[in-house]
Amino acid sequence: MSTFNVGLKKVVDDSYDIELGYDLCDKLVSDIKGGLVGNIKKFAVVTDDIVLPLYAEPIAQALTDAGFTAKLFTFKNGEKSKVRATKEYIEDAMLESGFRRDCCIIAVGGGVVTDLAGFTAGTFGRGVPFINYATTLLAAADASVGGKTAVDTPLATNLIGLFNQPKKVYIDIGAWRTLPPRQLYSGMAETIKHACMADRDFFDFLNENMEKIYAFDNNACEHVAECNCRIKYSVVMKDELESGLREILNLGHTVGRAVETVSGYRLLHGEAVAIGLCAEVRLSRRLGYMTDNEVNSVEALLKKASLPTNIPDYIDREELVKKLYTDKKVRDGKLRFVLQNGIGDIVCFGENVYATPIDEQTAREIINEY
Amino acid sequence: MSTFNVGLKKVVDDSYDIELGYDLCDKLVSDIKGGLVGNIKKFAVVTDDIVLPLYAEPIAQALTDAGFTAKLFTFKNGEKSKVRATKEYIEDAMLESGFRRDCCIIAVGGGVVTDLAGFTAGTFGRGVPFINYATTLLAAADASVGGKTAVDTPLATNLIGLFNQPKKVYIDIGAWRTLPPRQLYSGMAETIKHACMADRDFFDFLNENMEKIYAFDNNACEHVAECNCRIKYSVVMKDELESGLREILNLGHTVGRAVETVSGYRLLHGEAVAIGLCAEVRLSRRLGYMTDNEVNSVEALLKKASLPTNIPDYIDREELVKKLYTDKKVRDGKLRFVLQNGIGDIVCFGENVYATPIDEQTAREIINEY
Repeated sequence: MSTFNVGLKKVVDDSYDIELGYDLCDKLVSDIKGGLVGNIKKFAVVTDDIVLPLYAEPIAQALTDAGFTAKLFTFKNGEKSKVRATKEYIEDAMLESGFRRDCCIIAVGGGVVTDLAGFTAGTFGRGVPFINYATTLLAAADASVGGKTAVDTPLATNLIGLFNQPKKVYIDIGAWRTLPPRQLYSGMAETIKHACMADRDFFDFLNENMEKIYAFDNNACEHVAECNCRIKYSVVMKDELESGLREILNLGHTVGRAVETVSGYRLLHGEAVAIGLCAEVRLSRRLGYMTDNEVNSVEALLKKASLPTNIPDYIDREELVKKLYTDKKVRDGKLRFVLQNGIGDIVCFGENVYATPIDEQTAREIINEY
Repeated sequence: MSTFNVGLKKVVDDSYDIELGYDLCDKLVSDIKGGLVGNIKKFAVVTDDIVLPLYAEPIAQALTDAGFTAKLFTFKNGEKSKVRATKEYIEDAMLESGFRRDCCIIAVGGGVVTDLAGFTAGTFGRGVPFINYATTLLAAADASVGGKTAVDTPLATNLIGLFNQPKKVYIDIGAWRTLPPRQLYSGMAETIKHACMADRDFFDFLNENMEKIYAFDNNACEHVAECNCRIKYSVVMKDELESGLREILNLGHTVGRAVETVSGYRLLHGEAVAIGLCAEVRLSRRLGYMTDNEVNSVEALLKKASLPTNIPDYIDREELVKKLYTDKKVRDGKLRFVLQNGIGDIVCFGENVYATPIDEQTAREIINEY
């Protein structure tokens, strides 16, 4: 018996820039010309059918005009496309079009496009570079920092995927104007989550400027995009040191994801998160971490943002409780919740512990309350 | 317009040990008890239907006896299983059995199992640790070092996958006894490739000891396993510095992969590589890099190893040439070949260039020669 050591210690630099601005197509092309992804000349522009004519086609055209090869790969808009079959479709279509290892994927769209295209890039030819061109507030809030990419399966959300960092992210704030209002509001839910979790000043800013943001005021929108990046980045970076902190990003998501599933995706992700935040603040109040006033402030801000603060009537409360408590991650009959400490802070339950077990009866009471 | 930098520079240590020996199941369990994969208690043992009763079931049983949770996930033996559908099947079966992020995958089998299970581990829960228990000479030669994992698609071999390093590799030399002879010989082809590429002494050792190896002489088999690890490791490590060197591992594989495909997988991978090596040494001779004697030595060693040195009669030569030259990686009508410089060395065509373009007519002549 003998042992052979394979030494593979090295420094990896996955750093990248996020560019926040308006109409960033020209900037994207000039960055690529300037060597953003080295000498690569072939680009797969991955998008959905709604974003296709608005942003993806102009980007592909601009790349073609600049002398690059750019081909569009499009799938149907919506969370239901975030599955392995869509990833296979993109892979086969890329292979069919002659794409091999010497290409780059550009994701143009919202969180679904970013997740799918980032995951596809991570396994195509065992990894090709990718660039995110984010056209939604949700993508700006959630998908631009953290490197999480994934697809859903019938049995689990976001469980098949990769950590894969883009070469650069473009957040086109101008694109928010083209969002259907419900999509814009949905993105605001993750933004409010960030504020609740980490930044009281940002919470107050949102409270004072919601109308301006929804009227696409440049300064207000830029501030929203910047705060989202900063808050998410600080959590993700600290998590590298104290593993577990990243869990706080699940604020509002425990009930949120369950209600999203039970609604059969009639609720958008952000709408479900808003409902989940309402359950979470009620739990936080019950356990003494929030006052009535603070709970009311969070609910008022969600309402101001045109987000739901009640579970829709068509959702069976008992089915929702069942969905929560039959999931495999439930241990000893208790489900773990991240809770707020007032507004702008998270409850820490011990060293690197940011979630606390809640029994089924307590959750049932909260859910039946609203 | 503003820019936000996401700094993600860090030291990554993917080092691992390869344990070479006999009946390593107990060692595997004691390593896991000792913390090889931290506090993980749940193990998905991924294997094929042939290896299942021989090694996978005993390993799962030993883990269960030691107090761990171990569940078997089995697919049909053979290269045809190395596809995305099998990966999905394993993922869904694991999710159905309650596996989430806190698990470890143990691949028990040959190269197909290693490739599939390693890829699955890399994307399950965005990456769970995995361990390789290699039961074939081919896995010992090829799959234990380098971190390449992948599946095939209708349009491309090994193009969807990941670089993913195992936590440890066990090469159970005792398992070679249970291989069908053709599988053993197939593994020897990659071994001979390593010798041709990098180690004249090892080539001579194989020439002098082939009977001993095929009679499972302990010392001879251990030497084979060690040399394979050492040679592959030195290439992979040097490639980290001089990108491109890794390409030399394709020696014999250009024609090899094409003949494997055109045979409809009637040829095993190693058999196809042996045929590919014969094409390659003839090309090397034609271009002045090998003598008649050296070419004859390589062919004689392949024959001694019970490997084919001629293209089977049922293969249409012209179809094979077409297969080679219609592939998308062909540029300007020329296909790039790695060539030998004598025995134990590779021709370097320039700084970091280890392959040279060959036109279709030259390839046709070589292919029609044998």
